[in-house]
Amino acid sequence: MAPYFHQPEALVRFSEEKMVKVNLYESPRMFCDVYCLRPGQEQKEHTHAGNDKIYYMLSGTCQARIGEEIRTLAAGQLAVAPAGMIHGVRNESAEEAVLLVIMAPHPDLSRA
Amino acid sequence: MAPYFHQPEALVRFSEEKMVKVNLYESPRMFCDVYCLRPGQEQKEHTHAGNDKIYYMLSGTCQARIGEEIRTLAAGQLAVAPAGMIHGVRNESAEEAVLLVIMAPHPDLSRA
Repeated sequence: MAPYFHQPEALVRFSEEKMVKVNLYESPRMFCDVYCLRPGQEQKEHTHAGNDKIYYMLSGTCQARIGEEIRTLAAGQLAVAPAGMIHGVRNESAEEAVLLVIMAPHPDLSRA
Repeated sequence: MAPYFHQPEALVRFSEEKMVKVNLYESPRMFCDVYCLRPGQEQKEHTHAGNDKIYYMLSGTCQARIGEEIRTLAAGQLAVAPAGMIHGVRNESAEEAVLLVIMAPHPDLSRA
């Protein structure tokens, strides 16, 4: 596909070692990644003071924590982690899990 | 679902008059909307000087323009409109079309 058109599922790849992040797009304003988690893999809980994050579940399921709430995210469901709120995802299932993740602004390319 | 957990497809609604935008989340840093287009409806081509937009196709198809390129976006495909680049979507199919749309920063709540 062209530079501005993507098929996120086509970019999926996994590692035995840890969750794989595949970047689709980045600028100082945002990044858009695909997160690929084998069973047992996770993005550890953490907080960004000035950045919002959207998790959209493409396939499989994850346990998503946003603040004090933990829910199972299934394909087609979305979680929002507003700036300052602890968040993380963990694949507690027996299947691979894939998420579309957008963060704004970009935590490394911006000074927010 | 809780305030930070959403099922975008559950929010879909259409209007005879024009494309419907359903807001899921907004802050000065971004908005996350669901765009619902009946056949023939569109988001007219336009440009934002300082904001990036992601279109992710949830169901149906649209013609998406990014800069000089026009492609058919099908479910599971994504288009990125970087700041300063003309973009728009039009449902030229006979079926309803639904997109997840994220823009950063928020064009009205930020001074970007």
